[in-house]
Amino acid sequence: MSSKAIAEFIGTFILVFFGVGSAVLMGDLIGFQGIAFAFGLSIVAAAYGFGVISGAQLNPAVSLGFLASGRLTMGDFVTYCIAQILGAIAGAAVIYVIASGKADYSIAANGLGQNGFGEGYNGGYTMMSAFVFEFVATFLFVTVILGATQSDAPVGFGGLAIGLTLTGIHLVGIDVTGVSVNPARSIGPAIFAGGAALSQLWLFLLAPLAGGLLAGMLHGAGITRSPHAQPKGFR
Amino acid sequence: MSSKAIAEFIGTFILVFFGVGSAVLMGDLIGFQGIAFAFGLSIVAAAYGFGVISGAQLNPAVSLGFLASGRLTMGDFVTYCIAQILGAIAGAAVIYVIASGKADYSIAANGLGQNGFGEGYNGGYTMMSAFVFEFVATFLFVTVILGATQSDAPVGFGGLAIGLTLTGIHLVGIDVTGVSVNPARSIGPAIFAGGAALSQLWLFLLAPLAGGLLAGMLHGAGITRSPHAQPKGFR
Amino acid sequence: MSSKAIAEFIGTFILVFFGVGSAVLMGDLIGFQGIAFAFGLSIVAAAYGFGVISGAQLNPAVSLGFLASGRLTMGDFVTYCIAQILGAIAGAAVIYVIASGKADYSIAANGLGQNGFGEGYNGGYTMMSAFVFEFVATFLFVTVILGATQSDAPVGFGGLAIGLTLTGIHLVGIDVTGVSVNPARSIGPAIFAGGAALSQLWLFLLAPLAGGLLAGMLHGAGITRSPHAQPKGFR
Amino acid sequence: MSSKAIAEFIGTFILVFFGVGSAVLMGDLIGFQGIAFAFGLSIVAAAYGFGVISGAQLNPAVSLGFLASGRLTMGDFVTYCIAQILGAIAGAAVIYVIASGKADYSIAANGLGQNGFGEGYNGGYTMMSAFVFEFVATFLFVTVILGATQSDAPVGFGGLAIGLTLTGIHLVGIDVTGVSVNPARSIGPAIFAGGAALSQLWLFLLAPLAGGLLAGMLHGAGITRSPHAQPKGFR
Repeated sequence: MSSKAIAEFIGTFILVFFGVGSAVLMGDLIGFQGIAFAFGLSIVAAAYGFGVISGAQLNPAVSLGFLASGRLTMGDFVTYCIAQILGAIAGAAVIYVIASGKADYSIAANGLGQNGFGEGYNGGYTMMSAFVFEFVATFLFVTVILGATQSDAPVGFGGLAIGLTLTGIHLVGIDVTGVSVNPARSIGPAIFAGGAALSQLWLFLLAPLAGGLLAGMLHGAGITRSPHAQPKGFR
Repeated sequence: MSSKAIAEFIGTFILVFFGVGSAVLMGDLIGFQGIAFAFGLSIVAAAYGFGVISGAQLNPAVSLGFLASGRLTMGDFVTYCIAQILGAIAGAAVIYVIASGKADYSIAANGLGQNGFGEGYNGGYTMMSAFVFEFVATFLFVTVILGATQSDAPVGFGGLAIGLTLTGIHLVGIDVTGVSVNPARSIGPAIFAGGAALSQLWLFLLAPLAGGLLAGMLHGAGITRSPHAQPKGFR
Repeated sequence: MSSKAIAEFIGTFILVFFGVGSAVLMGDLIGFQGIAFAFGLSIVAAAYGFGVISGAQLNPAVSLGFLASGRLTMGDFVTYCIAQILGAIAGAAVIYVIASGKADYSIAANGLGQNGFGEGYNGGYTMMSAFVFEFVATFLFVTVILGATQSDAPVGFGGLAIGLTLTGIHLVGIDVTGVSVNPARSIGPAIFAGGAALSQLWLFLLAPLAGGLLAGMLHGAGITRSPHAQPKGFR
Repeated sequence: MSSKAIAEFIGTFILVFFGVGSAVLMGDLIGFQGIAFAFGLSIVAAAYGFGVISGAQLNPAVSLGFLASGRLTMGDFVTYCIAQILGAIAGAAVIYVIASGKADYSIAANGLGQNGFGEGYNGGYTMMSAFVFEFVATFLFVTVILGATQSDAPVGFGGLAIGLTLTGIHLVGIDVTGVSVNPARSIGPAIFAGGAALSQLWLFLLAPLAGGLLAGMLHGAGITRSPHAQPKGFR
């Protein structure tokens, strides 16, 4: 396994361990604000721990944006996505093991931090609201990521900026969908939670990937890219 | 449309999507502290995503400060303001669409994160308190922005510093006015919310612009500018 | 008035406007955690807005530490302290004006974010606990500040590190003393609040100044200073 | 005493003063989210205040990771551990002194921020959950630390990244174990609290040290290290 794959695997493990873990183990105690910070700070951890190895993309929708903008090869894209999905599943598994050590925990009653929409899921938003939120939020997220890592952006700040952006997105949408903007993050818990988490999973694959693809295409076409940045500059 | 205009449009869209979105969709769940972070982190997102393109000013009062200090041309000022206002309206529209997918949401009952003052708005502060807060807070905000981006300030930190400053301002004033310090941010929701949001809009144009203008004049005159900074240095 | 004095005046104004303002206007809504962030983020704002002018010390105990370590002249020390105290008073005055625009606000009943101890103040801690907390916290705060700004510390990070340190200190001690670690911050509200705020003010002058002095002496003697830092290096 | 030992002593004092202090003195008022930030921000304070002296490791499990990866000598490892444990004990002692100044505080009833597990401790998680959490969290923490400080990571960001990572870890696990990931942090309060805090202390020595050792071995073997980093590069 290449060092890039290991980095994406552990990095996405961190994303799910922090984000989904905070929701499952501490959600009632820290609220949606605390969960929002846990997700964002997981990006900070992975970006500075692994950024120089793989770029710490941790997210197939982000990697699709890099691919579409010409800043990631197809080979790396496939490797990254597999590592990200496996890392997310492993992260969810470890959280499940820890959660199972609490007397009143059951995955049927408490879930595993899965994404969702409609009646019975958080604020009960419609499927259309969920789709609009996930598409728009992912488009913004990936646009910011591509901009913050382009060749003339200030060096070193990407990890903080991107992590705090993800916190901001969670402060808007946890009540709507639990916030995915990341197919891997949705797949991990859904495999264990089953039920609606699986039957609604398509939306958390489709909307983020569409948002990431559009962001990558606009960046690649120079519309949201700095005029002074190298088109394929990569950091 | 120039890349600067696109950057200001999307950047201000992010500001409203995060800030107003968190207030409308998650306000009851994350409290005023969570909203304060959402506004601040939107600046972090836009600053690192678009800063190298347009400076990510996202705010007519900020752009007026740059104009008055001699660091923005009149042509760019007009372009920026138009893009900012359109971005704020678009951001509010998308939040409205998402919010409408919740069963018990209505703009009449729940508003759209608009600014306001007086009886019936948050803490019920008087118009004079609202004006003093908005004027002083915008003056401080724009003074910090001009200082943090002057030619001898540390490179790259502006986005974090300015975003966290906006969070700090929201931690003081959400109960007073909802915190504008930004005419575009106030115009976006007011167009949809109507009523008091429109009839009180003048204050959220006048007070922030006056605060930003004063900050720009003092900076341009060298009073709040580093003695070692280039008068027209721009980052 | 020199540009350094103006920077310290406005910077300390920001400290009180954010910190005391959040406590007075939003304390019930954001809790002690929100207040802790408001104080810390005020430092971030002032450090990046004014750091290149005056160092943004904003605090007589900090300036005493710089003086004792040989990194501030006696002339600047006096100028800084005067500007800081005047800035804090002005900041408290503006918060008082804004607060007075709320129907049920009175300074007698609600205070103005003043420091204190003993029965009737927050957790009702004894004077000895208050003194130990203020002395130790200021010693640590000023030691961190002197270290983070020494000549071989990473460039540009001081403002973030110092602001977040102040947030950390507030997360420990608001219930004990409201957290001063800064005579100017205590003087500002005390002048308006009177009563216990004035009669207990001595502790918030003495303990922070003693802590800052010790920190400055140990740093100046090389005990807490990097062996590679220039003794009088100043950023 | 060497300047490195002094730095580790004061740095770990700060960790316990902020983190344990916030739990003991303000836990009911700021919640688990506030405590999570206090722990994380203590790292930020110590990293920028003392990083250029000793690296601000503040934690025997972290130092073991540096030792195992070949980036710390055995002599320094022993010195660091002794200084860290003494600093943690001193920090806990000062918090105990301050807490004792509150009328209704007793260490028997309120504890001193000690770690624990099982019935009667926070969420009542089993010993196995506690061990899994501490082992995995420390492995991730030390892996991120070694990565963020390797020779080709961006300069200066380590302190922020590592501190915010520790906040993220606390947002996951305070309800499980109170979060140790640091034998020194556990020893400090346990000495004063006695009882279960002492009888369960073995887990908070063993699991973090095992996690840190594994992280150090994988980094030293190049598996989680950047291919471009110098194996013994140290910052």
